[in-house]
Amino acid sequence: MMDGSDLNSPCGQRVAASFNRQGMMLHLDARLLRALPGEVEVALPFSDKVSQQQGNFHGGVIGALADIAGGYAGLTMLEEGAEVVTVEYKINFLSSLQGGELRATGKVTKAGKRIIVTTAEVVHIDAQGERTACAVMQQTLVPVAKKY
Amino acid sequence: MMDGSDLNSPCGQRVAASFNRQGMMLHLDARLLRALPGEVEVALPFSDKVSQQQGNFHGGVIGALADIAGGYAGLTMLEEGAEVVTVEYKINFLSSLQGGELRATGKVTKAGKRIIVTTAEVVHIDAQGERTACAVMQQTLVPVAKKY
Amino acid sequence: MMDGSDLNSPCGQRVAASFNRQGMMLHLDARLLRALPGEVEVALPFSDKVSQQQGNFHGGVIGALADIAGGYAGLTMLEEGAEVVTVEYKINFLSSLQGGELRATGKVTKAGKRIIVTTAEVVHIDAQGERTACAVMQQTLVPVAKKY
Amino acid sequence: MMDGSDLNSPCGQRVAASFNRQGMMLHLDARLLRALPGEVEVALPFSDKVSQQQGNFHGGVIGALADIAGGYAGLTMLEEGAEVVTVEYKINFLSSLQGGELRATGKVTKAGKRIIVTTAEVVHIDAQGERTACAVMQQTLVPVAKKY
Repeated sequence: MMDGSDLNSPCGQRVAASFNRQGMMLHLDARLLRALPGEVEVALPFSDKVSQQQGNFHGGVIGALADIAGGYAGLTMLEEGAEVVTVEYKINFLSSLQGGELRATGKVTKAGKRIIVTTAEVVHIDAQGERTACAVMQQTLVPVAKKY
Repeated sequence: MMDGSDLNSPCGQRVAASFNRQGMMLHLDARLLRALPGEVEVALPFSDKVSQQQGNFHGGVIGALADIAGGYAGLTMLEEGAEVVTVEYKINFLSSLQGGELRATGKVTKAGKRIIVTTAEVVHIDAQGERTACAVMQQTLVPVAKKY
Repeated sequence: MMDGSDLNSPCGQRVAASFNRQGMMLHLDARLLRALPGEVEVALPFSDKVSQQQGNFHGGVIGALADIAGGYAGLTMLEEGAEVVTVEYKINFLSSLQGGELRATGKVTKAGKRIIVTTAEVVHIDAQGERTACAVMQQTLVPVAKKY
Repeated sequence: MMDGSDLNSPCGQRVAASFNRQGMMLHLDARLLRALPGEVEVALPFSDKVSQQQGNFHGGVIGALADIAGGYAGLTMLEEGAEVVTVEYKINFLSSLQGGELRATGKVTKAGKRIIVTTAEVVHIDAQGERTACAVMQQTLVPVAKKY
């Protein structure tokens, strides 16, 4: 599920260990691409498992991808033994797209003790490699004790 | 995929026709329960296709379910030949849950000519039928011409 | 600044004590109308202190009013010695209005130990008493220790 | 009310003409600083007209400032004769601050025909010139015909 050499770092391994427990993301063939302190990128290929009524990527899966990109970006800022829970997010959809794959990059805006704020950008990459802005998200996380 | 007698009405059949084209929702075993003018309810059972790293329902799928509940509630307010596109939504998660199923009920707050505003509530129902508030969403839709 | 008998209750007095310290709200002639456990209503009359370029109520002041209605609804759920800080809110504007006054009613959706979620509805009341839905808000608060 | 030479451009004059009609912003001593295609900056000094119960900048005024920074950034993308209406915004507060002044910079993420999406960042500048991130906003606008 992992593409990049970034994922061999402690930060990358930590995010990967959590990512690989996400039944939904594995089921939808999502991949963790990069995990650096404060920034995480994930990818999701088009399939009929993620389409809506017009044959485009489902807004729900775009939201899910943005949510975990932001969430894992937040996770990279925490000490071992902690993980994050999403309090809320808000997502704007910029274009409707099908085929190719989605890439979501989450970045930490502020990592406070009690509240972490992130943003994520989702772009679509078609078969020819052309990139189109797909969605932008703004998110609130809280750190919690890891229980597994 | 349809449970209720409401779905035999023209309003219900219209929503069902769109719902049954959503690859993602069918794939996740989601069901359309009710579709009345201004109000739509959908359900989604727990499975490892919708779980996150702690074994709970994935926030992304909760968002997806709320998104379509609100979106279809908006659709019921439009004339034939139109459908809706989600401009954006914002969702707050209220509790983390696993097993059982989710029910999302979308309601139209205001159906303007250019902008439709909805809210959705997501509740969890466990095997004993106990209900727990899971998420609340606020959403913006625009009507567009139906192209299929 | 206070209209209602509800405000003589301990809950009402607590909210009023905070409200009356808000320079901005006093300056804009806002009034605290009701404060019950989990629900607070505030009012704001039209003036050129709250108008935008078309002569309507400024979206910013509609947001401010919704913010404090939700925030004070959250405050009513906390023990003495605590107060709330707004983490974030999201507001949809439903209509543009001028004259008369705004009424914002905040309600608690869930009061958790770490996170409080509220919603608020803002209505406009014109000189003839006609009510028009103006805005809906969804908000996240955290409890903090009171420091004054 | 205008500080910068940018404001002598047609783009700057257009935004200034609207800004100077905002009763609320004039009343609160807000200033338009910069207006370039797709980017607008506004400032607001601290005073007891914009404080909340702890003596900090009121969240409502932070939201108002972010709202107009994003709104005017959107306006710069439209043809003459059009203006924008805010459909909704979502704002996260990053820190509580008093004294000095706020600066909000709005930027256009996507300017579609029907929907414009923007973000805004609000920073605080204290008397010594130190900058602190104060809030981030994500916003949806629609273009409408100008009526005045």
